[in-house]
Amino acid sequence: MSSEQSFKIMRDGSITTPKGFKACGLHCGIKKSMRYDIGSIVCEVPANAAAVYTLNKIQAAPIGVTKNSLQVEGKLQAVVANSGNANACTGKQGNQDALTMRSETAKLLGLPEHHVAVASTGVIGECLPMEKVIEGIKKLPESISDGGGNDFGQSILTTDLTEKNICVEVEVNGKKAYISGAAKGSGMIHPNMATMLGFITTDVNIEHTQLQSLLNEVTDESFNMITVDGDTSTNDMVLVMASGLVDNVTLDPSHPDWFAFKAAFQHVAEILAKEIARDGEGATKLVEVEVVGAETDEDARKAVKTIIGSSLVKSAIFGADANWGRIIAAVGRADIPVDPDTIDIRLGKIEMMVQSTPIPFDEHQAEFYLKKANEIHIHVNLNIGNGYAKGWGCDLTYEYVRINAAYRT
Amino acid sequence: MSSEQSFKIMRDGSITTPKGFKACGLHCGIKKSMRYDIGSIVCEVPANAAAVYTLNKIQAAPIGVTKNSLQVEGKLQAVVANSGNANACTGKQGNQDALTMRSETAKLLGLPEHHVAVASTGVIGECLPMEKVIEGIKKLPESISDGGGNDFGQSILTTDLTEKNICVEVEVNGKKAYISGAAKGSGMIHPNMATMLGFITTDVNIEHTQLQSLLNEVTDESFNMITVDGDTSTNDMVLVMASGLVDNVTLDPSHPDWFAFKAAFQHVAEILAKEIARDGEGATKLVEVEVVGAETDEDARKAVKTIIGSSLVKSAIFGADANWGRIIAAVGRADIPVDPDTIDIRLGKIEMMVQSTPIPFDEHQAEFYLKKANEIHIHVNLNIGNGYAKGWGCDLTYEYVRINAAYRT
Repeated sequence: MSSEQSFKIMRDGSITTPKGFKACGLHCGIKKSMRYDIGSIVCEVPANAAAVYTLNKIQAAPIGVTKNSLQVEGKLQAVVANSGNANACTGKQGNQDALTMRSETAKLLGLPEHHVAVASTGVIGECLPMEKVIEGIKKLPESISDGGGNDFGQSILTTDLTEKNICVEVEVNGKKAYISGAAKGSGMIHPNMATMLGFITTDVNIEHTQLQSLLNEVTDESFNMITVDGDTSTNDMVLVMASGLVDNVTLDPSHPDWFAFKAAFQHVAEILAKEIARDGEGATKLVEVEVVGAETDEDARKAVKTIIGSSLVKSAIFGADANWGRIIAAVGRADIPVDPDTIDIRLGKIEMMVQSTPIPFDEHQAEFYLKKANEIHIHVNLNIGNGYAKGWGCDLTYEYVRINAAYRT
Repeated sequence: MSSEQSFKIMRDGSITTPKGFKACGLHCGIKKSMRYDIGSIVCEVPANAAAVYTLNKIQAAPIGVTKNSLQVEGKLQAVVANSGNANACTGKQGNQDALTMRSETAKLLGLPEHHVAVASTGVIGECLPMEKVIEGIKKLPESISDGGGNDFGQSILTTDLTEKNICVEVEVNGKKAYISGAAKGSGMIHPNMATMLGFITTDVNIEHTQLQSLLNEVTDESFNMITVDGDTSTNDMVLVMASGLVDNVTLDPSHPDWFAFKAAFQHVAEILAKEIARDGEGATKLVEVEVVGAETDEDARKAVKTIIGSSLVKSAIFGADANWGRIIAAVGRADIPVDPDTIDIRLGKIEMMVQSTPIPFDEHQAEFYLKKANEIHIHVNLNIGNGYAKGWGCDLTYEYVRINAAYRT
């Protein structure tokens, strides 16, 4: 393997590919339709774990319960997740319900409560139908299996149209190791965790604190760089569990395979993030925005987020309209240093603006690109420094409005 | 007149009602359709003037030219404005064109150049068709009239569906004085000046510096508290001209009629701002958001802007869905201090949440309110301080997407 690609993508892999993991997904009745709405990932040993959470100050009950579990030992052996109801803004009852989800799951799997994490996604402000949830939890032990990864992936979807899965193989101490992820996204997606749940499993041996700092670093360049509509949910969480069953020398930055492992881990996070953006509510296109030449990376990140968050840019892309004026207008309001006279803008390979001067371009070529490309690339060079960032979003469509005008009905 | 309402609304008034002002609007060919696309306000004397501008770092050429005019003496005698082309991101040619608009207008009206302001709105990145513009400017002197206020109002519209006008009468030193405004808005509307042009005329006697500080203060509570889509344009400007022809004792805060005048001025700005929000691109409803009980007014403003800027809140309102969960989620990500347990939310008069606990409410009543009310009121009490703010926006609709997916075509 070259240093460019230190890992192999496993097309048939899932979150149960890493050694030690089983999963399941089933329908317990939270959703009115017969779609799966509760699921679990279970590890055969206590896994070193880490998580990042929404920065929204209004946090759903499961967030607090999962934080509480992880605080004890930094280990998890099971996750129970439901979709269809976020258990957010549900007061003391909501907190009690999340604790009950944890304790029931722990009891049935024979685990200490603090080895169980809880995650929920869906409508805010309605209490969970706990009878149905408990019935569902009772079925989890018999349902989990080596082949249950895809069922789990389905059980966490809300308005998502596609499952988001990725599995990569990487060598650590000459042994094959795996990193897999499953995620859900769709609406309310914005930097710093949105209505987004991400679950990453791996079988490498890595300490909790090392895993946490790796997750933090990678999240800033993946999950925190996507936006669908600028809203940040109350429930978001990305959780990683490492079973350690590969029995490698514990991974840390001094390990000879650290960079290969880290690159593989980054790939998993980035693919999940991009798939969430691609499947944004009503989206027809994935949009990748790259900003270079900012004063700092932080400035570049702000510019990327402002561009991919702009409703005007997003609707122009939906309309296949190469309206770079909206891109530069977004850069101008990103609240970062810019030189109004040195900005370059490229759409795919088509130059639109060089040194802030519009370049005549073939409108038909640009329209063709916007209509046909699988991913739309917007490239902006501010030409004032070395700050760099990349992020992902989607177009704004009639379908987004339709979905969100009647979400609860 | 009571202290509550120190002014009278003049239904038939326009920006030419204050003594000394004439105006016009006509079609010179910038727009393909036969709609008006160039206009002027002219004062018979040099008027004390003040302006506020977009905070976008990419500023259109007319912004610089108008700033330059005002810097000389703080006086203006004419404004020339066009729609259909923003003269933004047009480089040196654009700057030259804005200067030509100013010099041609000054020459034809017999004014010094620095008594002329220039404003443009429309598509970004295309140079003005200057032959047509100059032909239009040549017709301005013969077109201006006492009755031209509405024509001017039409000449600044882009995707606006309605003209935005207001005229109030207020007594100063026992004499009748007038304050009038005309504005355009529609898309790219966000705090700190958006694709928004506002022109206020008055015949009171007030110094330039006093007028500027009044405009700054009032703008922060009116034009800067509206949002249509979170985008801030390169061209925005609110400009006020005071002819002084009422011949009152110069207005300042020590004047006995100052508060009556200020209230009238605030009303003009607030009505224009609300009308811009009501006529946001594709909007079917005006949404007023009031946040009380924040730690500071600045925090309250941030919360208001986050709520009215939320695509999820906006599309729920379009769908008449009383989804308060999206409101509290927006509060939670507003980056201000909140106590997650003390939040009250009201929709109109319907209580949705008290002390962060959902209150059962009649869904049909809420749906009826969202469908039928002329203005939707969202009221949030954070219950942690005395910070207060109010702002305006609109719903997010299919029509917004349609308009912006194909703006240039």
